[in-house]
Amino acid sequence: MINLNVAQKLIKEHLLHGEMVQGTEIGIKIDQALLQDATGTLVQLELEAMDLDRAKTEVAVQYVDHNLLQTDFKNADDHLFLLSAAQRFGLWYSRPGNGVSHPVHMERFGKPGKTLVGSDSHSCAAGSLGMLAIGTGGLDVAAAIAGEPYFVKMPKIMGIKLMGNLPDWVSAKDIILEMLRRHDVTGGVGKILEYYGEGLKHLSVMDRHVIANMGAELGATTTVFPSDDETKRFLRSQGREDDWVELVADEGCVYDLYEEIVLSELVPLIAKPTSPGNVVPVSEVAGKSIGQVVIGSSANPGLRDFWMAGAIVKNKTVSSEVSFDINPTSRQTIQNMIENGAFANLIKAGARFHQSGCMGCIGMGQAPASDSISLRTMPRNFPDRSGTKDDQVYLCSPETAAASALTGKITDPRDLVKLFKMSYPKYKNPEIEIINIDMLVAPPEDGSQIMLRKGPNIKALPHIDPLMDIYKVPVLLKMGDSVSTDEILKAGADVLPFRSNLPEISKYTFTVIDDSFYDRAMESKSHYGGHIVVAGENYAQGSSREHAALAPKYLGQVAVIALSYARIAWQNLANFGILPLEFINIKDYDKIEQADMVSFKSLKEDIRNRNPIKVLVSNDSGKQLEFDTKHSLSDRQINILLKGGIINEFKDKLNA
Amino acid sequence: MINLNVAQKLIKEHLLHGEMVQGTEIGIKIDQALLQDATGTLVQLELEAMDLDRAKTEVAVQYVDHNLLQTDFKNADDHLFLLSAAQRFGLWYSRPGNGVSHPVHMERFGKPGKTLVGSDSHSCAAGSLGMLAIGTGGLDVAAAIAGEPYFVKMPKIMGIKLMGNLPDWVSAKDIILEMLRRHDVTGGVGKILEYYGEGLKHLSVMDRHVIANMGAELGATTTVFPSDDETKRFLRSQGREDDWVELVADEGCVYDLYEEIVLSELVPLIAKPTSPGNVVPVSEVAGKSIGQVVIGSSANPGLRDFWMAGAIVKNKTVSSEVSFDINPTSRQTIQNMIENGAFANLIKAGARFHQSGCMGCIGMGQAPASDSISLRTMPRNFPDRSGTKDDQVYLCSPETAAASALTGKITDPRDLVKLFKMSYPKYKNPEIEIINIDMLVAPPEDGSQIMLRKGPNIKALPHIDPLMDIYKVPVLLKMGDSVSTDEILKAGADVLPFRSNLPEISKYTFTVIDDSFYDRAMESKSHYGGHIVVAGENYAQGSSREHAALAPKYLGQVAVIALSYARIAWQNLANFGILPLEFINIKDYDKIEQADMVSFKSLKEDIRNRNPIKVLVSNDSGKQLEFDTKHSLSDRQINILLKGGIINEFKDKLNA
Repeated sequence: MINLNVAQKLIKEHLLHGEMVQGTEIGIKIDQALLQDATGTLVQLELEAMDLDRAKTEVAVQYVDHNLLQTDFKNADDHLFLLSAAQRFGLWYSRPGNGVSHPVHMERFGKPGKTLVGSDSHSCAAGSLGMLAIGTGGLDVAAAIAGEPYFVKMPKIMGIKLMGNLPDWVSAKDIILEMLRRHDVTGGVGKILEYYGEGLKHLSVMDRHVIANMGAELGATTTVFPSDDETKRFLRSQGREDDWVELVADEGCVYDLYEEIVLSELVPLIAKPTSPGNVVPVSEVAGKSIGQVVIGSSANPGLRDFWMAGAIVKNKTVSSEVSFDINPTSRQTIQNMIENGAFANLIKAGARFHQSGCMGCIGMGQAPASDSISLRTMPRNFPDRSGTKDDQVYLCSPETAAASALTGKITDPRDLVKLFKMSYPKYKNPEIEIINIDMLVAPPEDGSQIMLRKGPNIKALPHIDPLMDIYKVPVLLKMGDSVSTDEILKAGADVLPFRSNLPEISKYTFTVIDDSFYDRAMESKSHYGGHIVVAGENYAQGSSREHAALAPKYLGQVAVIALSYARIAWQNLANFGILPLEFINIKDYDKIEQADMVSFKSLKEDIRNRNPIKVLVSNDSGKQLEFDTKHSLSDRQINILLKGGIINEFKDKLNA
Repeated sequence: MINLNVAQKLIKEHLLHGEMVQGTEIGIKIDQALLQDATGTLVQLELEAMDLDRAKTEVAVQYVDHNLLQTDFKNADDHLFLLSAAQRFGLWYSRPGNGVSHPVHMERFGKPGKTLVGSDSHSCAAGSLGMLAIGTGGLDVAAAIAGEPYFVKMPKIMGIKLMGNLPDWVSAKDIILEMLRRHDVTGGVGKILEYYGEGLKHLSVMDRHVIANMGAELGATTTVFPSDDETKRFLRSQGREDDWVELVADEGCVYDLYEEIVLSELVPLIAKPTSPGNVVPVSEVAGKSIGQVVIGSSANPGLRDFWMAGAIVKNKTVSSEVSFDINPTSRQTIQNMIENGAFANLIKAGARFHQSGCMGCIGMGQAPASDSISLRTMPRNFPDRSGTKDDQVYLCSPETAAASALTGKITDPRDLVKLFKMSYPKYKNPEIEIINIDMLVAPPEDGSQIMLRKGPNIKALPHIDPLMDIYKVPVLLKMGDSVSTDEILKAGADVLPFRSNLPEISKYTFTVIDDSFYDRAMESKSHYGGHIVVAGENYAQGSSREHAALAPKYLGQVAVIALSYARIAWQNLANFGILPLEFINIKDYDKIEQADMVSFKSLKEDIRNRNPIKVLVSNDSGKQLEFDTKHSLSDRQINILLKGGIINEFKDKLNA
């Protein structure tokens, strides 16, 4: 293997354990870590439990971008806790309202050639800068901050060749939507997506960010772009040209899989409810009345994207039927939007401007009205994620969103030429952006004396029981394919404030699917000592929230049996001591039903010895059957699981 | 009475019923009506119940400024309902995020010489423009929109002479805080406050707005300023010079009461928790650590106020301990802040900018952390109003707030001279402001065919039972002085979304004071057919929310016995069929206790005949006593009360 692609170069440079053989576990050195607040409070509690002295990564940053609404004391208390923890453990702290983690990190800290793990599934966005950036559960990030390698199965590498140039009114979002149209939400599972080809030269680093960010929606391990002249230009515009290094694929390198997109053939695309993979041309749904348009989020964070929306609505007024919400990326973005006129254009046209953060993307405000369509430039439209039950969220480009805001209907932006005699606005990147680093609080040289500030809603982590050998527990839920973590443990304004309070947040487990789950789980826990759930393909796709494993564990979940798993969730289950089993025979999925009882006989031994895990199924009506399942855990993971999860393992290490 | 003051001129010009004799009920013609969304949904339901064809006022405007967070479908559904109702009944509609009602109304619709009622207690702010502007319950506003006169007891008129000019670092907020320091929260009850004197010429219309707005905190019926050259300048800057008429007091006019403020003697003032009347010099509390600063709200809405804060923090960074929240007044204000540099100055210094609206002033977001001080330029700091239990909210000027944001401690802004070698920034009003009317939706010529859009949370008003003659009911709560409507029925992000859903919102009745109230009230309702509550002076001060009467009525409240009432609440009680009784002998307040049983024998007859209302008090331990109470209701109000409230009266009118 002499001619390497970019992904291989990044991995090779950081490889500490294993070999680059697809499907085997590798351990890589982590240079940078990213935390956001909704997952970060737990990570900081984990760092505390680990008795960490100081972060060992080159850079670690605690962002605050999710829980900004402060409808009571909880969010504000969390901010103070996170500031104190960042100071204590040697992390940077990006203050509330400073901006969305992924673009801010890229602008201020990202470096080509480096590795990053982040406790947010969209951490992969930094791949746009020639980094190996992986979203993962908080415990993995905590371990990385503590200097441990990051373990992942060596993915396949898919090379995606971009050719030609985008037509007018079509932009980066349409490229990633085209990928989702072709490959759906499971198409990237177990893969790194590496973009190459002459089409790249027309895509700015922020355009690449759009594509890398929503690689998460394909289920990809991460997305990688080369570090080229455009990367250099971007870093120069951020006052960081010195951080640039070139990182391009060797000539003659190969990929495990190939894909090709002719950019000039793309049309404006849109993802219909309720999956980012439900993609059609905008023209197919054009004309539907809408109630809301939202511009912004980590999926379209670039100055260009806001400028484009501003240029489209300039000197016009958005439809009186439409709430036109702007979710600016960062304080720095706002300053530059004031400078380039985008801010004034948007405000004048009727925009409701919000503080910089994740906002409606995570259901923290700006939920749409009942029975109304919301068009968003955001990355996800899983059921209820917006905060409104039975919502109808469509995902699209800033061009499509702004055009639709003007007409009050889903509108192909190419129709603006006819409707408003508009020509496609041409954006020019500024030589140098206005740069704002004032809201980034550096860690002190020595934080060892700093006390953690814990408000009354911040609870220490509970004890987690290790697995036992013998169980007889009910199947509390049987689910279909591609259930998202938003369905397992929803986000939103009601729930997110409890991210550091496990007993409270556990009450919301699976409520999107079944309101009675919590009560039934508590009953099963006291009656049977636990429960299992059954799922189809791609179980627990979406966000990296480890609460989607921790809360079920707290409610007594022993195992999941699924046809397949999303990567992060699968790692999280093992990390928190829930056994992620896989059906060997797909037909067994049909045979097991909700409310059946399931027995395990020698669970620990079978896991340890990598035996098939026998599942005995019975019910009151005399049903009796048995089938084999398997797990794909590494030896390291088996060890963790048998101890009841990674927290117990850390405690063991400490006691040793 | 030939030489009239401004208030008398306004009343005389609009007098339809009664005479200008202090203490007697007068009925005045209403020219303009103002609704906000949190009270407006109920008003619109009332207009629907009244079968109104079209608003009969010259101008009526439905603003949307309270419920903007949209943490689920309810807020957004309300917005659509309000838009449809505004179109149906012939009101203007100010779209969500367009701005705070009071300043926007003044800029776009207010006219010297006109009368206004508004379903928000701060509607009196329009007095700054030479209007007679009164905040009141929604039913009174609905009646005014339907063409009925507005009834109120002829207040005393207090003339407040302003002399000299303000020192550097002292501004309009300090004037109204000085009034509160002198007169506390009951000092304005039953009074119109009219400002005059040569000191006026240094106060812009927006400065006057600050003073008029917080007249509500003094309990005043309203505040009045003359319409002079400054008023003309202001209207010119809003492109409305033609709407100006002069309105000044006649030479030799007299006032019922006199007050005098020498502006040059004022110092920066601050209201400590948890009353706007708890005023001390800033220097007295300087040095206390703070966690938050909020700039904005209807109490400091002027472009000057934001510019001033921006000028103070320019090229500096706010303390990392402080969340620096900016609550911009309106879309138009933001555009002008972009123009004059204030926006960039604030953002650069670390501001978290929010959409235009009431925000944290009404507990809709930006609640402070536990055990932390929040400094706000807002009008109220009643307990828990911020959304945080046991909050510590201080009220102050933009100068004091911005200075404190820089230092992280309560700071007398005069200290900036020494601390930062700063001289007092001098603001100059622009000749003409950037004007934005695009988010004001005009009513159609004929709205009769427009259907009201009611989401699932919008419930029709329930039937209200008229009073009976005989009751034996428990005293469910005994309260002290100056209980606010925020304590009777709190606002905030949890509760406000239920403003159009009476059964749900009733569950929050009195929860700030007593968590068990709702359960006990429901029990009393089924056991005894109702309950009463007892209160001290100035019962139900604060906001105009009629829910603070409607919800207790729904829970079976028969009467309140208090030492005295805040005006709006007293009117609301009568409007919704709760009897507002007053102790005749102050000592009887001490004799009646919570959990006592209270009997009425011939209630309706005694009310009708203006007899003293006998109250028989007993308890299980053999307590037996009797005392007389009275009411101050007009014949019109007695009629309404006996019918079970104004809604029933309207229904009777319709059926007739």
